[in-house]
Amino acid sequence: MSGTLILAANNTKQMELKNTFVHHVYFWLKNKDSKDDLNKLIAGLRKLSAVKTIKQFHIGKPADTNRDVIDTSYAVSWLVFFDNGTDQASYQTDPVHLKFVEECSSLWTKVIVYDTVNVS
Amino acid sequence: MSGTLILAANNTKQMELKNTFVHHVYFWLKNKDSKDDLNKLIAGLRKLSAVKTIKQFHIGKPADTNRDVIDTSYAVSWLVFFDNGTDQASYQTDPVHLKFVEECSSLWTKVIVYDTVNVS
Repeated sequence: MSGTLILAANNTKQMELKNTFVHHVYFWLKNKDSKDDLNKLIAGLRKLSAVKTIKQFHIGKPADTNRDVIDTSYAVSWLVFFDNGTDQASYQTDPVHLKFVEECSSLWTKVIVYDTVNVS
Repeated sequence: MSGTLILAANNTKQMELKNTFVHHVYFWLKNKDSKDDLNKLIAGLRKLSAVKTIKQFHIGKPADTNRDVIDTSYAVSWLVFFDNGTDQASYQTDPVHLKFVEECSSLWTKVIVYDTVNVS
């Protein structure tokens, strides 16, 4: 089962993601009503997902939830899991990532990044 | 293999999390230097992870990355995956969640939530 990840859970405990560096980026578009720009950014992220150190990724948009504490103002969410900080650092300078920034950075006006590691 | 989730990847494409509702909460502590309060919040989140609709979770703290776009000001990150928005809504009113809020909400001064669904 090379290339296959197995995550086991039982009925009483949910699965905890351990040994995982979580890199979560939220993008706000310059042209917030442009469907074209939105699609360009999403297409760029799909290409970016080819970076070898990425273990899992999720490309998202705001859900339709709407409590006071929920920020729904961003256009696109880019959630990436790495095994560790070294792999995340390598991703930052990966040619595929540099190409993504070159091709797509004109699309956004604001980015917030949260880099998170497991509490000990 | 009941209770076991298998995610398959090959060598040329990373794993994309599909059909996933991502609920990501960042907490800022009222007493930001209190290790006790930090540990109470983490312990509360571990209990909260028992909610049945949660598929996977990650309890985190800021990594040691430090670029301008990175927000490292929060104390704890609570990342949860649900299968869909219905499961997330059910989590909000789950007795385990209500108990968590009752026991732990005095610990934090600010919360930001990002609820994200897959782009189509």
